[in-house]
Amino acid sequence: MAVYTQVSAEALSAFLDRFDVGELVSAKGIAEGVENSNYLVDTTKSRFILTLYEKRVAAGDLPYFMALLDHLAGKGLPVPPAVPDRAGTLIHELEGRPACLIQFLSGVSVSHPTPAQAHAAAEAMGRMHAAAADFPLDRPNSMGFDTWLPLFERCGHSLDEIQPGLYDDIGFALDDVRSAWPGDYLDRCAIHADLFPDNVLMLGNRVTGLIDFYFACTDIRVYDLAVMHAAWSFDASGRAHDKAVGDALIQGYAQSFPLSDLERAEFPVLATGACIRFTLSRAWDWLNTPADALVTRKDPLAFWRRVKTYDNALGSRLRTLA
Amino acid sequence: MAVYTQVSAEALSAFLDRFDVGELVSAKGIAEGVENSNYLVDTTKSRFILTLYEKRVAAGDLPYFMALLDHLAGKGLPVPPAVPDRAGTLIHELEGRPACLIQFLSGVSVSHPTPAQAHAAAEAMGRMHAAAADFPLDRPNSMGFDTWLPLFERCGHSLDEIQPGLYDDIGFALDDVRSAWPGDYLDRCAIHADLFPDNVLMLGNRVTGLIDFYFACTDIRVYDLAVMHAAWSFDASGRAHDKAVGDALIQGYAQSFPLSDLERAEFPVLATGACIRFTLSRAWDWLNTPADALVTRKDPLAFWRRVKTYDNALGSRLRTLA
Repeated sequence: MAVYTQVSAEALSAFLDRFDVGELVSAKGIAEGVENSNYLVDTTKSRFILTLYEKRVAAGDLPYFMALLDHLAGKGLPVPPAVPDRAGTLIHELEGRPACLIQFLSGVSVSHPTPAQAHAAAEAMGRMHAAAADFPLDRPNSMGFDTWLPLFERCGHSLDEIQPGLYDDIGFALDDVRSAWPGDYLDRCAIHADLFPDNVLMLGNRVTGLIDFYFACTDIRVYDLAVMHAAWSFDASGRAHDKAVGDALIQGYAQSFPLSDLERAEFPVLATGACIRFTLSRAWDWLNTPADALVTRKDPLAFWRRVKTYDNALGSRLRTLA
Repeated sequence: MAVYTQVSAEALSAFLDRFDVGELVSAKGIAEGVENSNYLVDTTKSRFILTLYEKRVAAGDLPYFMALLDHLAGKGLPVPPAVPDRAGTLIHELEGRPACLIQFLSGVSVSHPTPAQAHAAAEAMGRMHAAAADFPLDRPNSMGFDTWLPLFERCGHSLDEIQPGLYDDIGFALDDVRSAWPGDYLDRCAIHADLFPDNVLMLGNRVTGLIDFYFACTDIRVYDLAVMHAAWSFDASGRAHDKAVGDALIQGYAQSFPLSDLERAEFPVLATGACIRFTLSRAWDWLNTPADALVTRKDPLAFWRRVKTYDNALGSRLRTLA
């Protein structure tokens, strides 16, 4: 999370000339989101985020993301749509990178959400899913169910460098989750797929922004809530579950989508899958980031430990969770 | 240039409660300045930079810097003073670091200053020196004349890893500059000592901010202009001198302080000294930063090459500048 691509004030001014957004007043590189370069840009008229997409976001996916944000913003959701230039173009090129000028949203990300904040955020997710119902585009989940086994295999026995026995245990859990994973009978729609507290802007208990849609995709609707539940309702180590926050998430989401009996029954496997997804992606990053790099590696075990909360029967069979 | 110390929204809100600045609306970590952690903070009332001082800025120097900014701001200079809390305190502690809440200034740093922009920036430096005349505090220049020989010796023969022969050549140039360095007969005052284009905020040809005073110190007044001249009037490689920009700097500065004959005569040695200062500090960083670190190392030779422009007689005797 840094500024990888430098944009000079001169180049930025020339870029802004394509838009009807006034003149450049201030620009600061910000540390935000996935591995893109972001600038907070003030003009004489308004305030924007300029994002230059680095390699992790595929340029081919940008039309999907921007169409989704435009669709959701059009229905009043607090998401940051890209600003079209005078020709109506949303996706540009700047300093050799795909680039979008995105509307700025106020608010801050809370580090320790209260139940009231969790309720409001999950309510916003419910409204987002309702608004996504008639969104016409599809994008496979690049970090979805089908990708976990290949990613597990790519990590391989190096997983045991993180904790001895982790390779066998994740393999076992993955088999277990795959055999129980819900089929086509659960609702699917465009989901955020990464709605961590980082990606929700709030003022007090009010949601002012849902941001960082760069994992958005078509997938099981309640899986989005399961990801959120795993991300919001644990302490940083993944050991302590905050049931009040977890329940508030389910209740907030229920304002649009009360869980059906079937969804309630499937929730533990969806959440266990979410835990495995983040364990594996963090394990991959952990094993492939030099320990002395200026990037904070996220502890893969923090998500692995959550498995016990969602599936105690499974957790009790895993030596690494003893 | 990254955010080294994370401040949660909750901790930031609590911090802002000490001040009469309204409530937190937005906070973004920004990539700015020397190696401090900076956040761009919006409240319901105004906009600020929150700076947490990492190890490179000595906490003991902060009272000097903050008093200087306050003094200059009080005289109408476009510098960013620290905001006092309700008890009048300017320097705080946050997340275990010294921290200041600093007034935000609009404007952008130009990458390729025009003569008009150089004129305006040097005029602002002149006004700053005039305003500093009755500033009562002193701080030795931590990167001043007296420090170059010890820094040269600490770099040692490793300099030849940057370019073969560099150790002997810098040693020779350093002797030359030291023997010619002006004594106490030139004006001294509080100077910025690092007024690169990065550290000047502009809107068009107007200066809206002089920032990043963390090398400010008491030193020869015209040495500040010499640093600025070396920083502003060359291309990035240090090979091509832009005389129009250089002349504009001298003329802009002359609005407050026309160079005396003596200062004009001493200018080449002051500028050569400035070149050696940045060559040595960049060489030290170059030799002590792993090549694969996520920090862009600045080419030490870019300042070394400028020596030829300021003292061609010296430059022609240096093998590394042939």
